[in-house]
Order: sequence, then C-alpha cells, then structure tokens
Amino acid sequence: MIRLAVVGAKGRMGRAVLEQALRAGDWEIAGEIDQGDPPKPALARSDVAIDFSAHAFSTLIAEASAEEGKPLVVGTTGHFPEEASRVRRAGERIPIVWAPNFSTGVNLLFYLVRKATAVLGGEFDSEIVEAHHRGKRDAPSGTARRLAEIIAEVRGLSLEQVARHGRSGEPGPRKPEEIGIHAIRAGQIVGLHTVLFGGPGEVLELTHRAETRDTFALGALRAARWVVGKPPGVYSMEDVLGLT
Amino acid sequence: MIRLAVVGAKGRMGRAVLEQALRAGDWEIAGEIDQGDPPKPALARSDVAIDFSAHAFSTLIAEASAEEGKPLVVGTTGHFPEEASRVRRAGERIPIVWAPNFSTGVNLLFYLVRKATAVLGGEFDSEIVEAHHRGKRDAPSGTARRLAEIIAEVRGLSLEQVARHGRSGEPGPRKPEEIGIHAIRAGQIVGLHTVLFGGPGEVLELTHRAETRDTFALGALRAARWVVGKPPGVYSMEDVLGLT
Amino acid sequence: MIRLAVVGAKGRMGRAVLEQALRAGDWEIAGEIDQGDPPKPALARSDVAIDFSAHAFSTLIAEASAEEGKPLVVGTTGHFPEEASRVRRAGERIPIVWAPNFSTGVNLLFYLVRKATAVLGGEFDSEIVEAHHRGKRDAPSGTARRLAEIIAEVRGLSLEQVARHGRSGEPGPRKPEEIGIHAIRAGQIVGLHTVLFGGPGEVLELTHRAETRDTFALGALRAARWVVGKPPGVYSMEDVLGLT
Amino acid sequence: MIRLAVVGAKGRMGRAVLEQALRAGDWEIAGEIDQGDPPKPALARSDVAIDFSAHAFSTLIAEASAEEGKPLVVGTTGHFPEEASRVRRAGERIPIVWAPNFSTGVNLLFYLVRKATAVLGGEFDSEIVEAHHRGKRDAPSGTARRLAEIIAEVRGLSLEQVARHGRSGEPGPRKPEEIGIHAIRAGQIVGLHTVLFGGPGEVLELTHRAETRDTFALGALRAARWVVGKPPGVYSMEDVLGLT
Repeated sequence: MIRLAVVGAKGRMGRAVLEQALRAGDWEIAGEIDQGDPPKPALARSDVAIDFSAHAFSTLIAEASAEEGKPLVVGTTGHFPEEASRVRRAGERIPIVWAPNFSTGVNLLFYLVRKATAVLGGEFDSEIVEAHHRGKRDAPSGTARRLAEIIAEVRGLSLEQVARHGRSGEPGPRKPEEIGIHAIRAGQIVGLHTVLFGGPGEVLELTHRAETRDTFALGALRAARWVVGKPPGVYSMEDVLGLT
Repeated sequence: MIRLAVVGAKGRMGRAVLEQALRAGDWEIAGEIDQGDPPKPALARSDVAIDFSAHAFSTLIAEASAEEGKPLVVGTTGHFPEEASRVRRAGERIPIVWAPNFSTGVNLLFYLVRKATAVLGGEFDSEIVEAHHRGKRDAPSGTARRLAEIIAEVRGLSLEQVARHGRSGEPGPRKPEEIGIHAIRAGQIVGLHTVLFGGPGEVLELTHRAETRDTFALGALRAARWVVGKPPGVYSMEDVLGLT
Repeated sequence: MIRLAVVGAKGRMGRAVLEQALRAGDWEIAGEIDQGDPPKPALARSDVAIDFSAHAFSTLIAEASAEEGKPLVVGTTGHFPEEASRVRRAGERIPIVWAPNFSTGVNLLFYLVRKATAVLGGEFDSEIVEAHHRGKRDAPSGTARRLAEIIAEVRGLSLEQVARHGRSGEPGPRKPEEIGIHAIRAGQIVGLHTVLFGGPGEVLELTHRAETRDTFALGALRAARWVVGKPPGVYSMEDVLGLT
Repeated sequence: MIRLAVVGAKGRMGRAVLEQALRAGDWEIAGEIDQGDPPKPALARSDVAIDFSAHAFSTLIAEASAEEGKPLVVGTTGHFPEEASRVRRAGERIPIVWAPNFSTGVNLLFYLVRKATAVLGGEFDSEIVEAHHRGKRDAPSGTARRLAEIIAEVRGLSLEQVARHGRSGEPGPRKPEEIGIHAIRAGQIVGLHTVLFGGPGEVLELTHRAETRDTFALGALRAARWVVGKPPGVYSMEDVLGLT
C-alpha cells in the first residue's frame, strides 16, 4: 500500500482522485488537505501527495512537501510566474510531476503528433479540430493550442504566425505552413481533439476522445506511483509515460 | 438505348459523363456539342441533353432545347440573373433538371439534414465541418453553405445572423442559434462534409465523403433518365431522387 | 406542472428520470413506485407514469394504469409474449408509448437510415459499425440489429440471409445485398452506432454517439409529455418524434 | 538528376511511378524494363531501379542489380521462400529497400501504433477497423494484419491466439488481450485503416485514409532517393522514413 495525501480533497478533481484510489485497492488515504488546513501532519504520514487545489495554496504545498522531503504531483494550474518559480525551486529538493493534463491518451497524442510532424515534413498540411460542450468559454482549448505549438516547434515556426482560426470568403490557396485550428462547440461533448495531416493522396488522423473525467484522476495516480523514489527534479507527464 | 447529347463534351465534367455513359451500356451518344458548334442538329437526334458548359452557352442550349422540345439536364453554374430567367422560361416548354451538385449522396444529405433539424429542434446545437484540397480558393464550400442555409431555413433564421466562421479567444458560452462552419484545407481531399448535432448526452453526425468526380457524372445521368417524359418545369436533384 | 409517477424509481434509469424531471422544472413528482408497492394510489394522483422496472411488474403497472385511465410510458424490456399481449391490451384503453430506446438521436437515426436506404437503392453497399464498453455481453447491440433490420426491410430481404458478422480469409467479392455488422468492444464506450453507405465514388455515414445515460431519461420525459391527452393506442418513440 | 530504371513499367504501379517521376522533375528515366526484356543494359545506365513486377522476374532483377552494383527498391510481393532468400542474398552486395507498402502514412501508422501499444499497456483494449472497395477478395487487408501483428508483438502474444474476426451472439465480456479486426467492404473505398485504443474514460484512434494510388508511387521514389549511396543491406520503409 502506498500512503497518499490528497490536496484539494473537496474539489471535483480531488474527489475523483480519492474515488479512483479507493477503487484501485493499493492506496491508503493518509490525509485529505483543503485550503486552511495545516498541510505538514498529513504530508508527514504520506509517501506522496497529489495536489488539485488553487495556485496560491498549491505553492505552499510544494514548499511544505520539500521541507518534509516528500514527492509531489501537481495538477493545479494558473500559478503566477513568481509562484511557478517557487514550485520549481521546491523541485530542487524533491521530485515533482507537474502537468496541465494527466490523461494518458492526451499526453501520448502530444508525443505521436511530434513524431508524425517530424516524419511527414513539409509535404503534409496540418489541421486541428477540437470539440467541447456548449458552455466552454474559451477557444480553442488549451490542449488544442498545445498540439498546434508542438507542430510549430517541430517545424521551427512561431505559432502566432501560422495559426489560422477559421476561414471564410476567398482566402485563396492554403499556405503550406498554416495550421488550421477549428473549435466546435455543441451539446455536452467532454472533449475531442483531432490532428489531421493531409498529403499527396493520403490523410493521417490522430484523434483523442475523453469520455469521463476519471481519466485525469487515473493519470494523476499513475504519476504518483512513478514519482516515489525518483531523484529531485520537475518532471512532466511525458516523463511518467516514458515518452521522452 | 437512350440517345444522349453532351454539351461541353470536351470539359472535365463532359468527358466524365461520356465515360460513365459508355460504361453504363444503355446510352447511345447522339452528339457532342461544344462552344461554337450549332446545337440544334445534335439535340434533334437525341432524347435528352446533359449540359456542363459555361453560363452564356448554357443559356443558348436551354433555348434551343425548348425549340426542339427536348428535355435537358443543366449542371452549369454561374448564370447571370438575366440568363437564369431565360433558362427558367425554357422550363415552361420542356422539363429541365437544374442542380449545382449531382451527387446522390450530397442531395440526400441535404434532405436528411433538413429532417434532422426539424426533429431535433432547439435542444441540439448544429456545427458543420467541411474539408477540401489545399488549392481550393473559397471557403466554406458551396455545399457547406447550402447545408447551413437549410438548417437556418428550418429554424426560421437568417444565415447571415447565425453563421460562425471560426472561434478564438474568449467567445463565451455558445449561443443556441449559432451554426459553426469550419473549413479544413489539406492535401488532396476531394470533398468531405459533416453536419454534427450535439444535444443532451448524445451526438448525431451525418457525413458525406466524395472519393472521385464520377459520382457527379453518374448523378447527371440519373437525372437525364428521370427527366425524359416529364411535364415541363424546372426540377431539382431532390425531385429526381424523390426527396420532396 | 405535470404530475409524474416513476415506476422502478430506485433503479438506475428510474433515478435518472427523477433527476432530469427535477432539473426540467415543469414536473411534479407525484409518486415513486417500486416492486412490492401498491401502484394505484400513486397512479391516481398522477397525470402520467414512466416505467423502468422489470417485465412482470411492468405488466401489472400497465393494467393498473388502464384501470385508473392514466397514460403510460414503458421503457422496460424483456416481456414474455403473454405479458406483452397484456400490455398491448391495456393500450386499448389508455395511450401507451412503448420503446426499447428513448434516445431522440437513435430513433432519428432509425428514420434517417430507412430513408437513405430507400433513396440510395441497390447501388450502395450498407455496413454497420457499433462500439460498446468491454463488459457488454451480447453482440451486436440491439440497436445495431434494429438498424440492420430496417435496411433489410426496405430492401425486402430477410436479415438472417444478409447479415454478415465478420470477414476473414478469402471471402471473395462482396455480395451486393450483404449487410456487414461489426461489433467493437473497448474500454468504457457508452454506445456508438454508424451506418455506412458506400456507392460509386462516394460514402455516406450516419453516426450516433451516446455520451451519458441522461439522454434516455430525457427521451422518456419527452414521451410522457407527448402521451398525455392522446387517444388510446400503443405508440412508438418514432410517433413521439413525428417520424412516421 | 537521378537516373531511374522502372521494372514492370507497363503495370499499373510502374506507370504511376513513371508519371510521378516526371512530375517531380529531378528524375531522368534511364530505362523501362518489362518481363522478357534483358535488364542489364538499362540497369547499367541507371543510378537506381524501382521494381513493381512479379515475384519470379523480381528475383532475377535483384540478382542482375547485384551484379551491376546498383541499388534497388522492391515493391513486388508474393515471392516464394526460395526467391525471397535470393533477394536477401542480393542484399549482401547492394542496398535494397523492400516493402509491402510504400505509403508514408501507412508506415508512419505502423510506427505510431507500436509506440502507442507500448505506452498504453494492458489497460487499453485494441481494435482494428479497415475498409476497402467491394471487389477486394481477401479480408482483412494485409495492412490490417500487419497492424494487428505489431500490437501482438509488443505485447508478447501470438496473433493467431488473440485475433478476433467478428462478434455475434453472446460472446460475453471482452478478453483483455483480444484484438478485434473488422473488415468493411463497400463501394469504391481505396483504403482506410483505423486502430482504436479504448481505456478508462478515453479513446485514442489512429486513422489512415488512402485517397489515390499516387501515394504508393511517391513512397517508392522517396525510397529510391534514400537508397542511393547506402551500404549493402535489406532495408524497410521504416528505415527510409527514419522510424527505427
């Protein structure tokens, strides 16, 4: 049994992590920590902590974990630059996995798209389609933006110069370096991402479809299992999945 | 054997019609008419003509067909309003099928989208995705526009007010009446159209994929077979397919 | 407010109906009836009942509803033939909607597939692909079977003679009347159904994807709203949706 | 300019290679060799040969190329074991690229599926769907079989034990190691392959769609450009694409 502390235990992701940990059977819940709780006692009796809280509290948790010498998984987003620096400094003393998205499939998709872009080269055009529920406020999704960034990075281009959000009228023939990004909003779609590569007489499509939020909780647990015993450092989910 | 005249016989679509007519076996090619040829002799010895030429010549062909009392299939597009009126006037004397797209599947898609929109009503959001080759100059495709028009018509809305070409930044929650239209451009894609309806806990997707241009030639031949013996009038491809 | 009795209220579908009724705001829960409860008092104070219970109890509910003169929606499946006759006899005195699947999208798909098969005729080949979670015990799904039946009916063929479950080895060229049915089992897929029509140079695909079970509860509520005030008879979900 | 000999120049693939070589502009056609022609003069005046002929002639070509010291690309399939050995022996003296499928996308798909299977491990179920035109005589396609082999290899299983062609009746819950393989036959589909990985709350789908046969000719030319100047050996298309 691995002893787990869950930070932000009352939040939607925290509850999902607790539920999946209980279901998996090889975790002991050593502590639940929420905003306002003193974190150190629970951290002290745990082997590892998973944090889905808020940026300020998350920063304190990273520092407390470093003081206790306990590994940490950070799923919280939205840190200010100064907070992010403090988390990274904590990573000089303990191993931290820090990722914006813990889905195995999405992180694998990042890797596959990087590889496919490198192999296919300039003969293939890249387009990204994402679909989410009607209530989503921003577009395109962070994951779609990351996919576009990966393609631009491999090609040595700046995303700002090549991203193309929507086409209408007489845009004329497509520029080879363009990356079309299309954000569908409809119904209650949890999350779909497709990267399409269209070349001479063939099309390759890589698609990820999230069906429930469980996948994010399971990914965080996978990261927590992996990070125990690692040397200090800040790791990504791609490190956890052996995709580097 | 049905005797067929092909107008615009040297063009890409004319050649495709000739090839498919020969392959089908029940057609006799009674005449090939191109810009500059006098059309009446060939029309006179035919049972029906298929016209894929240019707007001005096409108008003359409609009038010559009316004088000869011969049915006509018009696949030519781009008529000026005055030319269009003349074609319609010819349709008072002979039966004419006039359609922007002869693909059976696309015309069936128009019908299915009309029906689905009426049944699903306001609880479902509609989005259109089309994909074409990198050289296509306009966006979205005429067929995608027609699909969006159909959805708007059924809902009693004006397409201009509800069409949404691309989303980026912080558009906020989707407006229920919005119709997202997404134009992918990549490689050599012949033509793909998807209409997605997203509702409470479910998604319906209707997709048409054109693989070769043969489908347009076969649709024109189907229209020509149908129009022989019909009363005067201007018919659509949906009439030919019994979709009205 | 419409007064609703839910039969099988403690079951998974009953709970989903209660939840969606509360969320919709225009329903008053007049009674929850489970196996062993006397149904008449709750039925008497309701305008309509929705039944997701078990075949024997469901039969008693239909008879009690007929005695109380109250309309009924039956989502229960698995009735023995004698029980089914008794439900149908109850339908001579009250209006009953009886459906194996209340999803709006699936019932619309049935309708669209019927229409598409009729229009496309023999030139197009039909194949069905369904995908469900790894724990599903039967294959293909009842919905996939119903889709295949609809295609066979329209073509005047017997499903047993034309259904084709899997191809391997050297099956030789496809027979035109064949209906391929492919059952994917993987992960936690809630339910996906695609009907593919492949013809000369074009493909039409009609796909339904269920994301959550809410859609079934919402469909039952839609049927309950519709059935109030209808003349006696046994109605299908296609009647409710105006698809006949 | 690279001087190219095309073997099987009158065949469908040979003609496609000639056409694409002319279009590319940096090739000089130094010889066209068909069954019955003496190959050595044409090979002698070329830098490299591409062979799409038949197994017996292909074997002679490999030996003649070895004698002339010229690199070779072999796209011919169906060699008898003894012929295959002779080709491999020729590969001890000259560099040979030998591949059953020269599509960049398909070979990239092989690589991505290998990587995805390794990363996703046993928590994800794998299913393969392929679609081809109605006249295809064998099922599943060679490419689908290769995809299934790759998945089985990574997992250390024998394909014969885990391949599952079609499900019907009451197969019961899916076995984790099973690889479902589904062969759709419809219309004129050139070639579609999808590998679906379904795991806890998420699905990853990798799809390749061939639109024309040009992609195979272009892949062979890419292999020919690559093989010039390489040390003796038998190389795969994955070597050419840098996927090893």
